[in-house]
Amino acid sequence: MDERIREHAETLVDWSARVEAGDDVVVRVAEGAHDLAVAVAEVLGERGATVVTTYDSAEVSRAYLRAYGEDSISSDDGPDFETPAHELALYERADVVLSLGGGRNTFATADVPGETRQAAARATQPVREARLATDWVSTVHPTRSLAQQAGMSVEAYRDFVYDAILRDWESLAEEMGQLKEILDAGSKVRLVSENTDLRLSIEGRIAVNSAASVAYDSHNLPSGEVFTAPFDTEGQVSFDVPMTISGARVRDVHLQFEDGRVVDYSAAAGEETLGDILDTDEGARRLGELGIGMNRGIDRVTDNILFDEKMGDTVHLALGRAYDACLPEGESGNDSAVHVDLITDVSERSRLEVDGEVIQRNGRFRWETGFES
Amino acid sequence: MDERIREHAETLVDWSARVEAGDDVVVRVAEGAHDLAVAVAEVLGERGATVVTTYDSAEVSRAYLRAYGEDSISSDDGPDFETPAHELALYERADVVLSLGGGRNTFATADVPGETRQAAARATQPVREARLATDWVSTVHPTRSLAQQAGMSVEAYRDFVYDAILRDWESLAEEMGQLKEILDAGSKVRLVSENTDLRLSIEGRIAVNSAASVAYDSHNLPSGEVFTAPFDTEGQVSFDVPMTISGARVRDVHLQFEDGRVVDYSAAAGEETLGDILDTDEGARRLGELGIGMNRGIDRVTDNILFDEKMGDTVHLALGRAYDACLPEGESGNDSAVHVDLITDVSERSRLEVDGEVIQRNGRFRWETGFES
Repeated sequence: MDERIREHAETLVDWSARVEAGDDVVVRVAEGAHDLAVAVAEVLGERGATVVTTYDSAEVSRAYLRAYGEDSISSDDGPDFETPAHELALYERADVVLSLGGGRNTFATADVPGETRQAAARATQPVREARLATDWVSTVHPTRSLAQQAGMSVEAYRDFVYDAILRDWESLAEEMGQLKEILDAGSKVRLVSENTDLRLSIEGRIAVNSAASVAYDSHNLPSGEVFTAPFDTEGQVSFDVPMTISGARVRDVHLQFEDGRVVDYSAAAGEETLGDILDTDEGARRLGELGIGMNRGIDRVTDNILFDEKMGDTVHLALGRAYDACLPEGESGNDSAVHVDLITDVSERSRLEVDGEVIQRNGRFRWETGFES
Repeated sequence: MDERIREHAETLVDWSARVEAGDDVVVRVAEGAHDLAVAVAEVLGERGATVVTTYDSAEVSRAYLRAYGEDSISSDDGPDFETPAHELALYERADVVLSLGGGRNTFATADVPGETRQAAARATQPVREARLATDWVSTVHPTRSLAQQAGMSVEAYRDFVYDAILRDWESLAEEMGQLKEILDAGSKVRLVSENTDLRLSIEGRIAVNSAASVAYDSHNLPSGEVFTAPFDTEGQVSFDVPMTISGARVRDVHLQFEDGRVVDYSAAAGEETLGDILDTDEGARRLGELGIGMNRGIDRVTDNILFDEKMGDTVHLALGRAYDACLPEGESGNDSAVHVDLITDVSERSRLEVDGEVIQRNGRFRWETGFES
């Protein structure tokens, strides 16, 4: 076994999920994640946790959802799915849930009707909530399918994934803590870059130091971003990192904001998809997240949001729903059925200001050598 | 997909497990059983059941058990495992459990110490009991590993497996019902064959018509045997079907019984293993089962007890524990930590008598054409 798989498992169990002896752990194993599952089981055994492995197969889901959708009684809201009581019981009794992504085909469920998908998602909402109430962490095993999505050989993709995951998280958490402090204390953010001059308010909002650990309210491995929930957005912004959204390629999105709302938009590719997203609901026209990628182990775009949005020297903004973790007790943030991240490279001709002070220029933070205020 | 996989799934869900709309089903998926899992999920979707798939990986188990065993506090009884509360909750809320066997290496857990294995089995006993309280069925998907164990190509092995599984179960159940009636009414059984003349009492015992369906108290697919719990065994018996027991090849076992106990034994191979089994406890020297194989879809020995013991024209006897289903209310049968089946071919120079009447001769039952009393 690649020694990095073992290190990945240790990072996941110890740094990310903080598993302790006696914890009841569920490990969700995607079709291609067998080797990581073996390594994770070994580490969980060493820590004295218990383990249940579930088979998180996209092909199994597709077969089930399509068959149920076709054969069950349907209302206007789609097929009438039931909440699985046994699955709910499993997650209600779990302390930790580790999701090992890494399928064999990123389009395996592409022919499940959207209506069926949504109806199933509604019925399993209590299961998802029970899962989110645990110390959950999602990660991925580098499969051929994900390498293909990234446009890379599987060997090169493995190097990429482990560079992103096997970081010195403790020191990255410390560095990101500095940015969190600045954002927590700040009121106004300004982002200036090519075709971009955006002003956002963050007053009173709480930044999350997303250091790939439940100890930091961070549930993805890799992570490496600091994010908060902005409001009152004004100005324009361009996103030069291409991505796939709902199966469509989206490139060079440009948004114009007035009074916090998108009032004009364009895209070199995927403009229709972008329009559909903006028309979902009122909240879809407002920002739910400002995130600053700080994981320099991620040095290229791989068309996988788990990695792309954490890439060092990038900033992302999400249309739609804000995270509760960014909101002070009692305050409600932007609400929407969608949360769509858009990413821009800030490594050149860019600056990020907080309350008039430059905190990042051309990818360098103000505490780094080479920073020019 | 091989159409037979779909038929296998339908037989499992409909005939064997009798799944109904709203049932909460757990599907346990062995490493090599993905294709069957997809087909089963499709059928469960059509029937309107809910489904949770667990990953039943021998390699994951091995990694966990070895690591836990080495790192945990150990007593004289081996490592101190805990009962997984979340797994228990899952099975306590399940209506049906379908186990899809078919691994990738039948020796995948060969280097887990026996002590660790036994300690883990004790801790998970409540989980197993919860599973056995459901409408559970075990089956196998024909993997390369199982083909190898059978000494066959995977193509030929698939044909073999589907011949065994895709039967007209309704009519086989009816035929087996005739044998059950004879055994239920009978008192004395005599088995005569080469080097074999054995007399057993079955008075008051209840025969199980094992027709591969929970409706018949039968939990294996394939099945196709009628079995009961004998006692007061006298005489000698030879078993000419070779098998692997606890990793050892065992061939041409010969047993001599007096007053219900084995008083002498020999084997052309595996005699030491046989001796160890007989010395396990007092019950290991007595018979717990007399079974008559009636599945003529199984026409060869494949070193897999799930198939071998159901083979048409064979009789098997088990040393050790009797099944409760064969015992009248309040009566206790032979008790032992072991239950080891031994099989003999009765297709030639053999007869089975019940109360002095021949009911099977040279593999023909008395209701079949060609039967000679």
